[in-house]
Amino acid sequence: MSNPITRTVEAPDASRVARFASVRRLTEELAEPLSPEDQTVQSMPDASPTKWHLAHTTWFFETFLLRPSHAGYAVFHPRYDYLFNSYYEAVGPRHPRPQRGMITRPGVEEILAYRRHVTAAMLDLIGRGDDRLDAVIELGLHHEQQHQELLLMDIKHLLSLNPLKPAYRPSSARAASADAVPLQWIDFEGGLVEIGHDGEGFAFDNEGPRHRTWVDPFALATRLVTCGEYAAFIEDGGYRRPEFWLSAGWECVNQRRWEAPLYWERDGGTWHVFTLAGLQPMQAEEPVCHVSAYEAAAYAKWAGRRLPREAEWELAAADAGLDGNLLSDGCPLHPVAARTAGLGQMFGDVWEWTASPYVAYPGYREPPGAIGEYNGKFMSSQMVLRGGCAVTPHDHIRATYRNFFPPDARWMFGGIRLVEDLR
Amino acid sequence: MSNPITRTVEAPDASRVARFASVRRLTEELAEPLSPEDQTVQSMPDASPTKWHLAHTTWFFETFLLRPSHAGYAVFHPRYDYLFNSYYEAVGPRHPRPQRGMITRPGVEEILAYRRHVTAAMLDLIGRGDDRLDAVIELGLHHEQQHQELLLMDIKHLLSLNPLKPAYRPSSARAASADAVPLQWIDFEGGLVEIGHDGEGFAFDNEGPRHRTWVDPFALATRLVTCGEYAAFIEDGGYRRPEFWLSAGWECVNQRRWEAPLYWERDGGTWHVFTLAGLQPMQAEEPVCHVSAYEAAAYAKWAGRRLPREAEWELAAADAGLDGNLLSDGCPLHPVAARTAGLGQMFGDVWEWTASPYVAYPGYREPPGAIGEYNGKFMSSQMVLRGGCAVTPHDHIRATYRNFFPPDARWMFGGIRLVEDLR
Amino acid sequence: MSNPITRTVEAPDASRVARFASVRRLTEELAEPLSPEDQTVQSMPDASPTKWHLAHTTWFFETFLLRPSHAGYAVFHPRYDYLFNSYYEAVGPRHPRPQRGMITRPGVEEILAYRRHVTAAMLDLIGRGDDRLDAVIELGLHHEQQHQELLLMDIKHLLSLNPLKPAYRPSSARAASADAVPLQWIDFEGGLVEIGHDGEGFAFDNEGPRHRTWVDPFALATRLVTCGEYAAFIEDGGYRRPEFWLSAGWECVNQRRWEAPLYWERDGGTWHVFTLAGLQPMQAEEPVCHVSAYEAAAYAKWAGRRLPREAEWELAAADAGLDGNLLSDGCPLHPVAARTAGLGQMFGDVWEWTASPYVAYPGYREPPGAIGEYNGKFMSSQMVLRGGCAVTPHDHIRATYRNFFPPDARWMFGGIRLVEDLR
Amino acid sequence: MSNPITRTVEAPDASRVARFASVRRLTEELAEPLSPEDQTVQSMPDASPTKWHLAHTTWFFETFLLRPSHAGYAVFHPRYDYLFNSYYEAVGPRHPRPQRGMITRPGVEEILAYRRHVTAAMLDLIGRGDDRLDAVIELGLHHEQQHQELLLMDIKHLLSLNPLKPAYRPSSARAASADAVPLQWIDFEGGLVEIGHDGEGFAFDNEGPRHRTWVDPFALATRLVTCGEYAAFIEDGGYRRPEFWLSAGWECVNQRRWEAPLYWERDGGTWHVFTLAGLQPMQAEEPVCHVSAYEAAAYAKWAGRRLPREAEWELAAADAGLDGNLLSDGCPLHPVAARTAGLGQMFGDVWEWTASPYVAYPGYREPPGAIGEYNGKFMSSQMVLRGGCAVTPHDHIRATYRNFFPPDARWMFGGIRLVEDLR
Repeated sequence: MSNPITRTVEAPDASRVARFASVRRLTEELAEPLSPEDQTVQSMPDASPTKWHLAHTTWFFETFLLRPSHAGYAVFHPRYDYLFNSYYEAVGPRHPRPQRGMITRPGVEEILAYRRHVTAAMLDLIGRGDDRLDAVIELGLHHEQQHQELLLMDIKHLLSLNPLKPAYRPSSARAASADAVPLQWIDFEGGLVEIGHDGEGFAFDNEGPRHRTWVDPFALATRLVTCGEYAAFIEDGGYRRPEFWLSAGWECVNQRRWEAPLYWERDGGTWHVFTLAGLQPMQAEEPVCHVSAYEAAAYAKWAGRRLPREAEWELAAADAGLDGNLLSDGCPLHPVAARTAGLGQMFGDVWEWTASPYVAYPGYREPPGAIGEYNGKFMSSQMVLRGGCAVTPHDHIRATYRNFFPPDARWMFGGIRLVEDLR
Repeated sequence: MSNPITRTVEAPDASRVARFASVRRLTEELAEPLSPEDQTVQSMPDASPTKWHLAHTTWFFETFLLRPSHAGYAVFHPRYDYLFNSYYEAVGPRHPRPQRGMITRPGVEEILAYRRHVTAAMLDLIGRGDDRLDAVIELGLHHEQQHQELLLMDIKHLLSLNPLKPAYRPSSARAASADAVPLQWIDFEGGLVEIGHDGEGFAFDNEGPRHRTWVDPFALATRLVTCGEYAAFIEDGGYRRPEFWLSAGWECVNQRRWEAPLYWERDGGTWHVFTLAGLQPMQAEEPVCHVSAYEAAAYAKWAGRRLPREAEWELAAADAGLDGNLLSDGCPLHPVAARTAGLGQMFGDVWEWTASPYVAYPGYREPPGAIGEYNGKFMSSQMVLRGGCAVTPHDHIRATYRNFFPPDARWMFGGIRLVEDLR
Repeated sequence: MSNPITRTVEAPDASRVARFASVRRLTEELAEPLSPEDQTVQSMPDASPTKWHLAHTTWFFETFLLRPSHAGYAVFHPRYDYLFNSYYEAVGPRHPRPQRGMITRPGVEEILAYRRHVTAAMLDLIGRGDDRLDAVIELGLHHEQQHQELLLMDIKHLLSLNPLKPAYRPSSARAASADAVPLQWIDFEGGLVEIGHDGEGFAFDNEGPRHRTWVDPFALATRLVTCGEYAAFIEDGGYRRPEFWLSAGWECVNQRRWEAPLYWERDGGTWHVFTLAGLQPMQAEEPVCHVSAYEAAAYAKWAGRRLPREAEWELAAADAGLDGNLLSDGCPLHPVAARTAGLGQMFGDVWEWTASPYVAYPGYREPPGAIGEYNGKFMSSQMVLRGGCAVTPHDHIRATYRNFFPPDARWMFGGIRLVEDLR
Repeated sequence: MSNPITRTVEAPDASRVARFASVRRLTEELAEPLSPEDQTVQSMPDASPTKWHLAHTTWFFETFLLRPSHAGYAVFHPRYDYLFNSYYEAVGPRHPRPQRGMITRPGVEEILAYRRHVTAAMLDLIGRGDDRLDAVIELGLHHEQQHQELLLMDIKHLLSLNPLKPAYRPSSARAASADAVPLQWIDFEGGLVEIGHDGEGFAFDNEGPRHRTWVDPFALATRLVTCGEYAAFIEDGGYRRPEFWLSAGWECVNQRRWEAPLYWERDGGTWHVFTLAGLQPMQAEEPVCHVSAYEAAAYAKWAGRRLPREAEWELAAADAGLDGNLLSDGCPLHPVAARTAGLGQMFGDVWEWTASPYVAYPGYREPPGAIGEYNGKFMSSQMVLRGGCAVTPHDHIRATYRNFFPPDARWMFGGIRLVEDLR
């Protein structure tokens, strides 16, 4: 397989068209509860406005498919290539990321028109049935799914800054949490194993090549760390005792005055948590969420355990089913308590911080051209997270999927699973 | 007159009502060309979103009139006092200024409903005819007029950051500029004079008390410095030669890489200027605008002259008529070339930087209570500007009016008039 | 008198030589208690290392006298003009101010050799008796005296950052402070007065020209505000109540967490003050020192008074004798309690913050050439202080002397005298 | 082996004493060419003053050996534990790192007295022959050797900021560089190998435990990348072409305006390099030095190769001899050209950036107590470097030694060795 991003299987056109339309429609549905005002503001340099996500995912199809491969395509607007390029140096100059919130025009209506224009042209292009485009189309859809999650992360961050603590979507769903099942440990023998994507079906380039690695015996927790367990760490002085922290993490604690996960607020004696359904009482049985890698590592050290390496996690996940609390119809948009015994919550609920820095697998090579900038150039100073979360589209996750964020990032849905050495 | 902010003359109720309604309506009309997206974003900490201006001016009436003086008034929203307080410490805690752009909710529609609610209650209150409230009502109206100008300054700044360079209002009005009249000098004898407001009609507290001051003989330029004259300064190396600059100004030039006034862009060999009508070719005969006090002082030194002191300016303005290129029906929202001989452009077009730091006049005392925070606490590290500009409401300016900004500020419509010593 | 910095009277050569030698020697004596380590470090961008002061004052004579006017002068080192130029753009490029502490070589010994080299050449030049140089020589001596004070301010700041709280000079002198005399008020009629230097004897360019100004009647406090009085302001919540503060001052209080003057430390229930004799118990009767203009203004507002304008201060000082607690043999290097009734402490002890921004007097013109950069370019965003302090050389102060610092600066010896309006 | 830092072999007392005295003496000899001024200044927060290194290495013995284990020891100064603690949270509060340059007292002489005091007490303690202390003594010596290298790195940085470009030690040694041998490639089969320290002799805790890992076949360059080769990368637009750079590296290039390695200066058409012998013409055959991990990775990508993983490097180094251009008598303090064929320059010359983030080996556990803070808490956001450099003490390096720095750090002697995949 020569191109590491194009490991796709053949798909009949009808299903390709349906999938394309469905992914595009979901993005728009996610934006629907939001006003034009909500969709415009950038809450911090790392986040983007909703309408920028709507436009950028569209720009991706226009830039990598319609412009090069659709002879009759009429470019929607001559400056959108500048406005909506995210970070592709090879494509040309672009609007600076921290300024994305300054672009009040085009407004939401015009961007929706842009989406319709590009979607229509794409459906036309897909209808022509040129197999050579399949890989990039599939990449564009997975790219859009990534931005569906980013859209929800980013709007959650923005709404959290509003003193009125407004809800993205009022919660009927989030009933009082059932008790979580007790945490147990499952042993894994390890040995000389293989991890990474094997080329069947779609995967991002950074998931391959599949390769050998040595894993020592370990035991994995059957479920995620809960809010209640994490609150015990806080009560025990977790944020005031340097002995649990990496040096860089301890600096964050002190400089940013961290005292709890992002979105936790203490109101008198009780914790509240800001969610996509507004401010809610903390539910002790739910998985803790919105912690940084530093907090995850400090918690693990306090608990006398450690975080999993990504090979360990992938080994355990290989046999777990792909379902879980992910983004789909009627989902809560928030992690929920573990309710079944045995290894659970591997997919969905929260991204699980690993102890593994995000580096290239042995034999990895970036794809040629601008698409090569998709993943490779970010392999520095970030940590790998695995398993997806409650706002990850349900058909977007895999056991080999490698998400990555800087260790101090907290606005993604990041949580904790513990591991221990078996000797 | 005991209260320095309340020097009002009696007005019949009908005219009071009409004036109140008219000022309120103008604010809403100024916002009308803007989309909800445009009205929401804060382009920098010094600027505010349009809809924040809409709400804050309303909060002023609610806080200083309806809450204390209207028995039956029902507060519109319990948290708006927190969201829309600008800087009144005595009123209570408030949303931090640099975060005003994060409040996407309430949206524009809800804020317009807030305006209608408060306007109706105010009209009811005014109808009761309680003279004791006149001074604060008048202050509230002048306060709102200040925010009308700020709204236009702030939206100009925001739109300028958009690579599409959109217009607030397309310009049919801005025809090719007529030639400016030649610059001449008018002599003033000076001596022991009086400046400051004398208590007739409305004035802000900082305009009084009227007091004696000594002024040496001087000559004042009959018109403002033009873009063409300023371009000559640039061509002569104005931004590269330290000998013209105050030390703090030279630091700005170097750290912020100033090479021209704000909103000037060089496109090949010619200058363009961003205006409320979008990007336009620079018109040499128009007054130069959007310069800092440092640039104004450097230009004056290059030209072998100096900036006026505020007493000199006020002396000259005392006899000039109050009309000029100000904000009113059909106005260009941009300075225009001087077209008549004699002392001109004293009001409107651009605020004129003076050489006078903004300090209290002898005998000045802040009014008691929260209203005392209106002006007095800002008397530090700012410079006085005089005369109003093209976006100052036409009935808001006076010869004694003291505007003030830090010397490095450029987003207000600030320009230059020269003066020279007569001995 | 054409050149505003050269208003000198004739002096016989012998006294010129003696004065030159004496000023130069004092600088070296002030450095003597300090180790090479002490003399090398720059504690903040605003301060300079002791040995930089030793070298820069020498560079001044080399640059403005020896190079242009001493035919046979051999430049000591070809790069010292780059290393020891402070801020004279017209002289050429220079080492950046915040990097002065990085120049460990030349060391103290080599800089003392540089001093001897230049002093010898200067004595030779003075011996030639060329009157045309007198003004610049005198300027160089006053310049060096300014740096004598800066040297002491800067070393005090540096030593204060050492957790060992070392003394510059152990104090035998600083006996328990006598009671301060009671504060009284002296009335001044004001009227149309003249202030500014009249051209007799040396003055800096910024002290002239002498000019008319109007002063309303006022009463001046007979002595400075004491530490005990200031401590009462602190106890009354002075640093927690916004109503006393200018807006920019209140920001300083909050961002820099000011709770007392610079160098004050609370140890349990009692205040200690870091002095050039190390950490000492606060003496209630001594003048308060190391406050910013913001603190001075807040104290005055709390006390129901205000700070003097510089014309008021100069009017009162015109008849006061020039003696006071200044830098001379056996002086305490620290303000001392007022001990005599009547108007006192006008000179020495602490620089008195005025309410006057530092701007040019009417008719002021900068001298031509590099010397013109001495004062004029700093006339922005600073406040005037008057009267000298305990580390100002005793023959360096005048009633017309205008010192200036930004309103947030605290490391100079700045204190408070109150004034009140008489009607 | 229970304590990961104490894998020491027995040593006769005499040799222990000699080694102790020799290591201590070398530190002092390294400081000898430096004036008190040079020894005092901190050039940036990451660097420390020479005299701080002299004191901190002494504090280490006082804190971890004399205080707990020498009954009769008299503490030299009660506040040195505060002043000279580097980062041991468990030991107590400490002087902030960025403020180390503010401590002008104690001066060099007093710190040398401190060293003599502690050295004498340590020799006494060692003479008592308590085996239980051997491990910590050995750790203290290796700690001091690390600071010998830091001292030279830090003083090089400080002197480089001086416009006079002074030399630490004038170079007679650095003759015109011989031609470097041609770069060749040596194949390694890899497979399931073991790396890490096996417990024989001293090692830091982070070098163990020895553990299995899988290595794919690779070829390693026989020598380091030279300055000439790196200059070709620069000439080819290396610093202007984003396609070679990690995203975070490209940001550094743009924000810090990198155009060449640290200490390179272009003078007209030729490069000069600042060295411990002052500014010297760039020698094309010498190994390139003072590049960041980003520059190393960009160069490798430009060259069509990659950086080694640490397992690859250690595999290759296992059989290489431990000699090389390291810190010892008569050494040049600068990398030198490779002169012999075959695998060379593995030890000494420059630290070789690897592609491996600095993380714990499988099974790693921090030692208990404050000593546990030595290495473990820094395992975040740093990259591993291997092999020592020209200023690493000759008996301080091992094949298993793991040095680590953030990827943007350039002031250590960091260079480049290439690797390529064999399939």
